[in-house]
Amino acid sequence: MKASRCILLFALCAISVPFSQADEGMWLFNHPPSQILLDRYHFQASPAWLEHLQKSSVRFNNGGSGSFVSPDGLVMTNHHVGADCLQKISTKEKDYVAGGFAAAGNAQELKCVDLELNVLMSMEDVTARVLSAVKPGMDAAATETAHRAAINDIEKESADKTGLRSDVVTLYNGGQYHLYRYKRYTDVRLVFAPQKAIAFFGGDPDNFEYPRYDLDICFFRVYEKDQPAHVDHYLKWSEAGATEGDLVFVSGHPGRTERLDTVAHLEYQRDLVMPGTLNLLRRREILLQNYSSRSLENQRRAERELFGVQNSRKAYLGMLAGLQDPAIMEKKGASEKALREAVDKDPTLEKAYGDAWNQVAASLKKLIQIRDEYNLIGIGPSKRAQAFSSDLFDVAITLVRLTEESSKPNAERLGEFSDAGLPSLKLHLFSEAPIFDDLETAKLTDSLGLLMETLGAENDLVKTVLAGKSPRERAAELIHRSKLKDVAYRKQLAEGGVQAIDASDDPMIQLARRIDPASRRIRQQFEQQVDGPLRAAYGKIANARFAVYGSAMYPDATFTLRLAFGQVKGYQQETRSIPWDTNLGDSYQHAADHGNQAPFELPAVWRERQGRINPSTPFNFVSTADIIGGNSGSPVVNRQGELVGIIFDGNIDSLVAAYIYPDQNARAVAVHSAGILEALRKIYSADRLVSELTGKN
Amino acid sequence: MKASRCILLFALCAISVPFSQADEGMWLFNHPPSQILLDRYHFQASPAWLEHLQKSSVRFNNGGSGSFVSPDGLVMTNHHVGADCLQKISTKEKDYVAGGFAAAGNAQELKCVDLELNVLMSMEDVTARVLSAVKPGMDAAATETAHRAAINDIEKESADKTGLRSDVVTLYNGGQYHLYRYKRYTDVRLVFAPQKAIAFFGGDPDNFEYPRYDLDICFFRVYEKDQPAHVDHYLKWSEAGATEGDLVFVSGHPGRTERLDTVAHLEYQRDLVMPGTLNLLRRREILLQNYSSRSLENQRRAERELFGVQNSRKAYLGMLAGLQDPAIMEKKGASEKALREAVDKDPTLEKAYGDAWNQVAASLKKLIQIRDEYNLIGIGPSKRAQAFSSDLFDVAITLVRLTEESSKPNAERLGEFSDAGLPSLKLHLFSEAPIFDDLETAKLTDSLGLLMETLGAENDLVKTVLAGKSPRERAAELIHRSKLKDVAYRKQLAEGGVQAIDASDDPMIQLARRIDPASRRIRQQFEQQVDGPLRAAYGKIANARFAVYGSAMYPDATFTLRLAFGQVKGYQQETRSIPWDTNLGDSYQHAADHGNQAPFELPAVWRERQGRINPSTPFNFVSTADIIGGNSGSPVVNRQGELVGIIFDGNIDSLVAAYIYPDQNARAVAVHSAGILEALRKIYSADRLVSELTGKN
Repeated sequence: MKASRCILLFALCAISVPFSQADEGMWLFNHPPSQILLDRYHFQASPAWLEHLQKSSVRFNNGGSGSFVSPDGLVMTNHHVGADCLQKISTKEKDYVAGGFAAAGNAQELKCVDLELNVLMSMEDVTARVLSAVKPGMDAAATETAHRAAINDIEKESADKTGLRSDVVTLYNGGQYHLYRYKRYTDVRLVFAPQKAIAFFGGDPDNFEYPRYDLDICFFRVYEKDQPAHVDHYLKWSEAGATEGDLVFVSGHPGRTERLDTVAHLEYQRDLVMPGTLNLLRRREILLQNYSSRSLENQRRAERELFGVQNSRKAYLGMLAGLQDPAIMEKKGASEKALREAVDKDPTLEKAYGDAWNQVAASLKKLIQIRDEYNLIGIGPSKRAQAFSSDLFDVAITLVRLTEESSKPNAERLGEFSDAGLPSLKLHLFSEAPIFDDLETAKLTDSLGLLMETLGAENDLVKTVLAGKSPRERAAELIHRSKLKDVAYRKQLAEGGVQAIDASDDPMIQLARRIDPASRRIRQQFEQQVDGPLRAAYGKIANARFAVYGSAMYPDATFTLRLAFGQVKGYQQETRSIPWDTNLGDSYQHAADHGNQAPFELPAVWRERQGRINPSTPFNFVSTADIIGGNSGSPVVNRQGELVGIIFDGNIDSLVAAYIYPDQNARAVAVHSAGILEALRKIYSADRLVSELTGKN
Repeated sequence: MKASRCILLFALCAISVPFSQADEGMWLFNHPPSQILLDRYHFQASPAWLEHLQKSSVRFNNGGSGSFVSPDGLVMTNHHVGADCLQKISTKEKDYVAGGFAAAGNAQELKCVDLELNVLMSMEDVTARVLSAVKPGMDAAATETAHRAAINDIEKESADKTGLRSDVVTLYNGGQYHLYRYKRYTDVRLVFAPQKAIAFFGGDPDNFEYPRYDLDICFFRVYEKDQPAHVDHYLKWSEAGATEGDLVFVSGHPGRTERLDTVAHLEYQRDLVMPGTLNLLRRREILLQNYSSRSLENQRRAERELFGVQNSRKAYLGMLAGLQDPAIMEKKGASEKALREAVDKDPTLEKAYGDAWNQVAASLKKLIQIRDEYNLIGIGPSKRAQAFSSDLFDVAITLVRLTEESSKPNAERLGEFSDAGLPSLKLHLFSEAPIFDDLETAKLTDSLGLLMETLGAENDLVKTVLAGKSPRERAAELIHRSKLKDVAYRKQLAEGGVQAIDASDDPMIQLARRIDPASRRIRQQFEQQVDGPLRAAYGKIANARFAVYGSAMYPDATFTLRLAFGQVKGYQQETRSIPWDTNLGDSYQHAADHGNQAPFELPAVWRERQGRINPSTPFNFVSTADIIGGNSGSPVVNRQGELVGIIFDGNIDSLVAAYIYPDQNARAVAVHSAGILEALRKIYSADRLVSELTGKN
């Protein structure tokens, strides 16, 4: 029926299917854009080609992508993805972020603290099972309970049966549910990292800009039973790499897009979410800058978090600018209007889906009522409480909930405490990653201040939290008196269960206990009154789209594996032609143009060995592939499936990609495989690594 | 009657007069704390001593203080006050902020662009005349009109009669009105400035901290008829300077305090004003940082504004922390309760003043309703429109209003366009200070975005302003197409009057014209419904205070001349003893402690000439004098009225001073007169300047 409807509406399809020309889409590996690739690029993505690329792709659970690049479990990602591990294993005396690292042999590879890598092994459509759990006539509470139980059950069954990490992924904002099974690696070791000064050359000013000159790479190796893991699928290194006009593919984990959002939803984003988020990001950025400016050690401690905040701030500014551009909103409006008119014209569609847009609007209205409280104290699998910005608080609330949830049947638990999710949760809960009292205190002081500002000094919750003290005093007492930095104490509480938690005199545990009921209540309100109804409404809209335009459609990004494609191609910026690549020699000129001052100062080894390299070796390059945050570290491969580069950024024009496939100037920015090899050979003399990558001795 | 009432309420007076022990107060020169000085320090402030200090004190109209330090019109202030002029006369090729400046002779002194200095010549109480203009039964509009007419008339009469700048100053938040007459200097020339690296050594991290090591000084000379002005009053330089335990005085222009605010008003500050202001400051700080990071020239262009924003951000954070401290709010509550109980006990007082606190609360309620719009588009003598952050827009709206207001009788004009105010207004309107297109565009883009975020994309005003474009496009078009950078064009429009404005096709003029009616409307609403009623209510509260506690009370700061006093004294910070002074040698250690990296890098000349100086010479020192922003550059004098230092900062504990006289750790931070001389002699070989300061050849 879907197909025939599309034929009936052929004129409309031809006009409105948005990716008719452009290299648009973050496609599912089990629903690839085969026809588009065939028609436009005469490329046949065979099942074997797809499977090889899929299983060579790696997800970094701290928020990035990567790929296997040798049979011995060698993984390449970006430096700015690996930096999370680099920072956690660094000390005041040995700073691997700034100084870089190269292991002389496997024995010297450094174990990361709490890094989990995932490789997607299979996907299965479980939409029918998830949807059928909800029976007609169920109220919002029963709906959410049934929905959660179905997902917890599916995940647990799969994990028990296969031993693989099993996640039910919500696609098309609620239109489909797929079960993803991952091979999970938790023994991950650092093999090589360049200095931050070249990995993030140009710093925040150059971030999201092009041309660029960054060696944003980092190598890890996954181990099993203390031995390098052998992997069947890995990407062959292309020594020549990409060149202008090439068709290339990007296989990675775009984090989040909202291209299927209704116009009302985008307006909500534009008017409330983005401005509010930006205020918080700038607030955090200033706080971290102030903390960092006090000493070089402070700078080291906060560096990673500051980068993350600055990166988000720049991205969100670009996203907001897009939403504030009437041209983009008009395009969005026109496309929504076309779909709604098509639905309204057909009585069956109208009856099934016609009210979905109003349902979205109604859910957002509810969200606006509860959002302040939800943002401040709501805590979920990927949501921290803005009011308690502290790693120790996160540990405390996780322990409080873990002990309580563990006493319930699996189906009834909060999703992140279901049996299938516990291994990953505990990896973080019991992490030995360093926690710094002074930084913790600064952040908690500020976030308690935010709580007071937002809810008011006379609010009961605020009074409970602050206990008659100023934010500064209260934060200092909570951080300095808590014992939760001690991982053994965490384990003791986890094993002691609810009783141990109740008996604990740790002030952070006590705070978490006092907050938990209100925090659960607002999360439940959000899930039952906002998230559930939104999912239902968007499920309808997705089905309406399928009905009207056919199924050749990719879902919004969800930090799961996707395939993008495009051409290696420069662009025109006003009167300036931006070429498809930069070369190694250009980086020296770029440093000179900025007085060789940080963040435009090349590492000493780059300056000393300038004479060794071939300056015309391609360094960074751009393509039209459709990417977004989370794609960092994604391999760029050619038709043969060989690695020709690694994604590390998008240019400024690509920042609206969260909401709409961006205009013709948007580009994905990658490090070139030839530039990587040249730097590893000539600057770093990293012969062991080069041999492994090229398969030559 | 007031005196007798205080005797009646003696017990209460003794308990509640807040400055019974501490060195509190920013006192009026015509109402000095004579008795306190006599009782506590056995010091007699004679009329001649006071007049000499008053007339030696100088106000920098860009927001700072200073003093005459030679009979030939030599003025000393802070580098961070003088930096406004330094930046305006600098270019990409010649950066006086970073590089410093020393004039070889008078002929080499560099003329500032739009700097106005004021010296207070006389004060006159005009309360009765101002208050009598408002007749019983007048409505809010008539009240404001009559009030404004009275002030415009008084100022004009005085200016016409004396030729002096004449300002009616509102004191005690509306309790009194004094007419201040100033000698006005507008030919101000740069004599000497050190490098910013030592003037602001330690940068933002050290700002509002102590111990400090900053040579935050700058010398100017005022000219009349192209000759150095001879001044009768100037401060004699004390070569020995201050020492521990000394009684010292600070004569300067504290900008703004709100110590007389009601608790409701403080809560409004805490819950709305401070968080909102901080969000905007952080937003601007990030914007300026991003702009600055692109090139060294950008950094130079934005440096002055960025400093101002960072300085405010740090100050406001301290103020908010104070308001969020329950101990401080309890103190405020107790003091308000005591005053209200005293008023309520006395039927006459109750009848006259009893409703004032509720009137304040009601005015604030009104303010909350209109504050978004008022903040965004309200424009007044010291208020810019947040929605149009652009120097060119300021020029445009000033021209639009100037031409319109000039056609009205003086008494009916907006205050800043009254005849008495026009010379200062035109100095700025026709300033040749550089305006940078790219910085203007960045700021205007952001502020148009703020307008859209705050009022919503569908708001009529927003639509009018943006004209169907995105904030970025609209800002670029307004800045690049405007001709207002050309001062001759500004003068042409000013002379052409309303007709010329109406005929102008300048897009910024057209925008200002379109905005003006709404902007005037919201200002009028604010003046009639908030500011006027607040002034009336606070007038009552001030009179209630006089009645209950007697008249030994200083008004809140208003950027007019005040006298503070205190002792040179170190303090205890937790377990650490902070000594009263630092010395020149310490600065080298402080640089080394921070890896000699900016902002902790001493200028080359300081490093090269380290051997020449006596390292034990006092450099910076602290005293208990009661100061706040605006006091920057204030002379610190001893009992003999000799200059022993120059204020440049307060420590972190002093930041709550806006709301309450701070605790015993609060200190005013100054550069020591001996350290200044030593640096001028040994580091800078500034013999001409040293001779003039010491009167020795």
